[in-house]
Amino acid sequence: MTAESRPAPTVILGQNQYGKAENRVVRITRDGATHHIKDLNVSIALSGDMAEVHHSGANTNVLPTDTTKNTVYAFAKEYGIESAEQFGIRLARHFVTSQESIHRARIRIEEYAWDRIATSGGTGGEHSFVRKGRETRVSEIDYDGERWQIISGLKDLTVLNSTDSEFWGYAKDRYTTLQEAYDRILATDVSARWRYTWSADDMPAPAWDSVWEQARTALIEAFADTYSLSLQQTLYRMGARVVERVDEIAEIRFALPNNHHFLVDLTPFGLTNDNEVYLAADRPYGLIEATVLRDGADQRIPADLTLL
Amino acid sequence: MTAESRPAPTVILGQNQYGKAENRVVRITRDGATHHIKDLNVSIALSGDMAEVHHSGANTNVLPTDTTKNTVYAFAKEYGIESAEQFGIRLARHFVTSQESIHRARIRIEEYAWDRIATSGGTGGEHSFVRKGRETRVSEIDYDGERWQIISGLKDLTVLNSTDSEFWGYAKDRYTTLQEAYDRILATDVSARWRYTWSADDMPAPAWDSVWEQARTALIEAFADTYSLSLQQTLYRMGARVVERVDEIAEIRFALPNNHHFLVDLTPFGLTNDNEVYLAADRPYGLIEATVLRDGADQRIPADLTLL
Amino acid sequence: MTAESRPAPTVILGQNQYGKAENRVVRITRDGATHHIKDLNVSIALSGDMAEVHHSGANTNVLPTDTTKNTVYAFAKEYGIESAEQFGIRLARHFVTSQESIHRARIRIEEYAWDRIATSGGTGGEHSFVRKGRETRVSEIDYDGERWQIISGLKDLTVLNSTDSEFWGYAKDRYTTLQEAYDRILATDVSARWRYTWSADDMPAPAWDSVWEQARTALIEAFADTYSLSLQQTLYRMGARVVERVDEIAEIRFALPNNHHFLVDLTPFGLTNDNEVYLAADRPYGLIEATVLRDGADQRIPADLTLL
Amino acid sequence: MTAESRPAPTVILGQNQYGKAENRVVRITRDGATHHIKDLNVSIALSGDMAEVHHSGANTNVLPTDTTKNTVYAFAKEYGIESAEQFGIRLARHFVTSQESIHRARIRIEEYAWDRIATSGGTGGEHSFVRKGRETRVSEIDYDGERWQIISGLKDLTVLNSTDSEFWGYAKDRYTTLQEAYDRILATDVSARWRYTWSADDMPAPAWDSVWEQARTALIEAFADTYSLSLQQTLYRMGARVVERVDEIAEIRFALPNNHHFLVDLTPFGLTNDNEVYLAADRPYGLIEATVLRDGADQRIPADLTLL
Repeated sequence: MTAESRPAPTVILGQNQYGKAENRVVRITRDGATHHIKDLNVSIALSGDMAEVHHSGANTNVLPTDTTKNTVYAFAKEYGIESAEQFGIRLARHFVTSQESIHRARIRIEEYAWDRIATSGGTGGEHSFVRKGRETRVSEIDYDGERWQIISGLKDLTVLNSTDSEFWGYAKDRYTTLQEAYDRILATDVSARWRYTWSADDMPAPAWDSVWEQARTALIEAFADTYSLSLQQTLYRMGARVVERVDEIAEIRFALPNNHHFLVDLTPFGLTNDNEVYLAADRPYGLIEATVLRDGADQRIPADLTLL
Repeated sequence: MTAESRPAPTVILGQNQYGKAENRVVRITRDGATHHIKDLNVSIALSGDMAEVHHSGANTNVLPTDTTKNTVYAFAKEYGIESAEQFGIRLARHFVTSQESIHRARIRIEEYAWDRIATSGGTGGEHSFVRKGRETRVSEIDYDGERWQIISGLKDLTVLNSTDSEFWGYAKDRYTTLQEAYDRILATDVSARWRYTWSADDMPAPAWDSVWEQARTALIEAFADTYSLSLQQTLYRMGARVVERVDEIAEIRFALPNNHHFLVDLTPFGLTNDNEVYLAADRPYGLIEATVLRDGADQRIPADLTLL
Repeated sequence: MTAESRPAPTVILGQNQYGKAENRVVRITRDGATHHIKDLNVSIALSGDMAEVHHSGANTNVLPTDTTKNTVYAFAKEYGIESAEQFGIRLARHFVTSQESIHRARIRIEEYAWDRIATSGGTGGEHSFVRKGRETRVSEIDYDGERWQIISGLKDLTVLNSTDSEFWGYAKDRYTTLQEAYDRILATDVSARWRYTWSADDMPAPAWDSVWEQARTALIEAFADTYSLSLQQTLYRMGARVVERVDEIAEIRFALPNNHHFLVDLTPFGLTNDNEVYLAADRPYGLIEATVLRDGADQRIPADLTLL
Repeated sequence: MTAESRPAPTVILGQNQYGKAENRVVRITRDGATHHIKDLNVSIALSGDMAEVHHSGANTNVLPTDTTKNTVYAFAKEYGIESAEQFGIRLARHFVTSQESIHRARIRIEEYAWDRIATSGGTGGEHSFVRKGRETRVSEIDYDGERWQIISGLKDLTVLNSTDSEFWGYAKDRYTTLQEAYDRILATDVSARWRYTWSADDMPAPAWDSVWEQARTALIEAFADTYSLSLQQTLYRMGARVVERVDEIAEIRFALPNNHHFLVDLTPFGLTNDNEVYLAADRPYGLIEATVLRDGADQRIPADLTLL
């Protein structure tokens, strides 16, 4: 082993974190012949007193990322997985309270949903499952030893309105060529993150799974119900519906790509396209992002949802 | 423009085909206030008298790929999209019968399914949709001017049995270290392709959409119902169920990755893992492939499903 | 354990194969302080006397896929990895000759290339590497106990000519709207597979690595050298160049997407676009596929390259 | 058109931005027979006086995302693309200064590099290109009408040291099972973002392309040169090397996955694995993230690199 001389004194270490990412854990719970399944992807990031390992490579303060992985599987057995949020809270508390050098833990979880397979004659329904939907439930649990910040949400929820969407009356400049639209398809892949008001152990915790379902229902219904003059308006209604309906949520942020469906010009073929035939385009796409807050709430969800 | 000298005479042209791939067409049909949606990805491959364009670049016999794209959109308007198979048949017939230089057409279609969004008060249900499931319906239509070959199927249908699966009694050699399993998770992403007996215009055509649904139901129920001693056995039961139930199908082929879920060894932590906590692995994975046929049917689906 | 009744007699088992897919093996060889690296992704598919496992689940004839994985790693140690083809040949021969129930083996290998990192002062160059290029080298080794079939090639080699490409004089029908082009960008992601003449142990084997490099050089030079009147013509020249230059190769097949670069219409902004500004499109794309053969060679590479 | 009643007054709008994402522009510049290529993916996000469109759907202040797309292509013609950073600066300035309602612009650019194809005889080298490497150059330009913030970097640069890496002396708890390693492979996919000190029009701007190359060379050489006792140490040396060598850079942040290469246990087969045969794993992976700063610099690069 050799050792480089210490770096020049003008260089300093800033924010840093480490851990094992993407631990895939499946937990089966047997209730007689009926099985239940929880399917998670857990990523761990720990921060604390870590200057020495960056400067000299001495690992005294470093709990191995392999150990953080083992802890995920051991906790799945010891405590079960009631919900992604509850499981993440347990992990974050463990790392911060059990290792002196670790001052903060951030646990990110993706959850994959399963439906039961209904069979005519067999017993498959009791222990047979099919992956449900294309969307992924996400959660980020952040703990510094005192305060909690819990952000949950979803991604890749693809929705489409085939009418009740217009776009006109916009600003124009030298580079504007877009034609106004009075009846268009509005489609998007919803990415949403909402922050819960809950932030301390002495506050009553939300019923994580049912509150998540309430938020999802609210935003998808608002998407369907809104007669849209712009995707910004639809986004705002989706966020407002969530904040109005779900008391536990302080703020919500969306990143909504405008999945363009272009009305195909069929006149060269002597045909009229009466809002019937569309080309679903890939790139580029409009991207509309905004936060909607409960009055008085701080804005803490980062502007870039891609980071969660 | 310059021109290379013709290639040496020892080189000859073999099988060739060309066309526009991945034409994304969305067709909306309005039934009063209620809208219906068909969402396809159509790829076209044409063959015929194409030696000249390969040798000299002379395009006389080449209908542009751009034209094949236009035809997809024009036909969606002119004839609608009743089913992927019916739409593909119409396209294939058009290319082969309308262009003298084109002798064969192969149309491949992916179809993406949508559910209606049910809303409490609004009218969203009539024209609001959410993408359904993770799986994709696929179809390949092949026409040489006389005979048809229609292969349909699905991919990315993820299913899991949390029990009723064993694996033991296998062959062993110097490199065998695997422990026998008497209760394991069996999970896979089903990729299936089935060939219809229908092959000529004077035969009665299947009801494409309902027959597809019957086949899907049969294979998923067989997966759930089968007490499995090997994934090969499960695969065979899935295929047999389809062939037995659906008269229109001559053969079916599966590619079933064994999505390994490893029982995590928790003994180092003083814990017993009683088939509760699993690690869902990525690579490597077992891959089980086989064709199941109706007695007397030819085996025509290629061995490599990835090609469809 | 329960057992379903045997399937109805009208159902029969067709072609089938199984094995462990995507075994990622990295082999380091030390030549003093200088290290060499081979980085492969190995997939194994075995066929043979496998009816029983499909019908009853009895695994007597089934060497576990886990054992095939172990064999990859053990052979990497015992014999090293001289080339992907040589390694695949060794594996295929082993499975077919050592297990009575296995009659045929197909080994597919992806190889990832690495460059050395050249450093100014340090010793990094001896054991430090950076992944090279975006393309992947591929190989398929097929052995039935008597004859070999070796197909090698590459995928995801992205090339572009910014001029010397035209497209005009094509067939037109009612759906043709494309404008003729006399100077366009021609770009593609080359996917190529070539079959070696070598097929028996008593024939002299090619120098796998250097022959692969010759083929790659030939096709890329032909792409650059050809003044193109159609992508078909370019494809044919690429194939002819390989067959003409590399004696060991019997046939070659290409799948060449036409990565459209559309000249952007800037006239609405009072600007002239003199072949300067292009939009690189995603979908749809033209797809040109063909086989080029040495005269007298059989055409054995499947039409659908995606399967290799 | 219908209109919902305005949302309850307890809901307010937070940070928001919009624009066209992933505009793929290829710019060819002809220098006699020699062509030059710039290949970018440009994403635009604009903020400003946008409350009304969220509340009522009135688009008066909304420059269409389609117009922002057109501007990318028009500017590529009018001003050329000297570097990604210079091009992004021009776009950001345009949007903020030409539209009263737009107060801030953020331009994100991915750049794909191309090498010339060297041919033996032909003229391909002058206008024929092959995509270079797997990594992507990235840049984010942020402008609020007064100050600039320019962050550049790269992602997907895969590097590997086959020796000179150890990991031992770490903290242990009840869940620690990892064995200490005294000679291991160290491999990662470098994701790095560095912020330039340049922030105002009256400061001399960096030579964007050559400074980017200096930073890339510094970090890759430091990776190769460092005898590593932990990936954190290697990360810090990479960052320090960049800050020490490149005066224009204020801070740099890395996200380094630990691409685990596990030494395969070959003892069951009677073989010794003397650091020769490794299994390259996918998930989970260690993830090491940190910022390294020039003394006195602010820490402004977000902790989550995935957002850039």
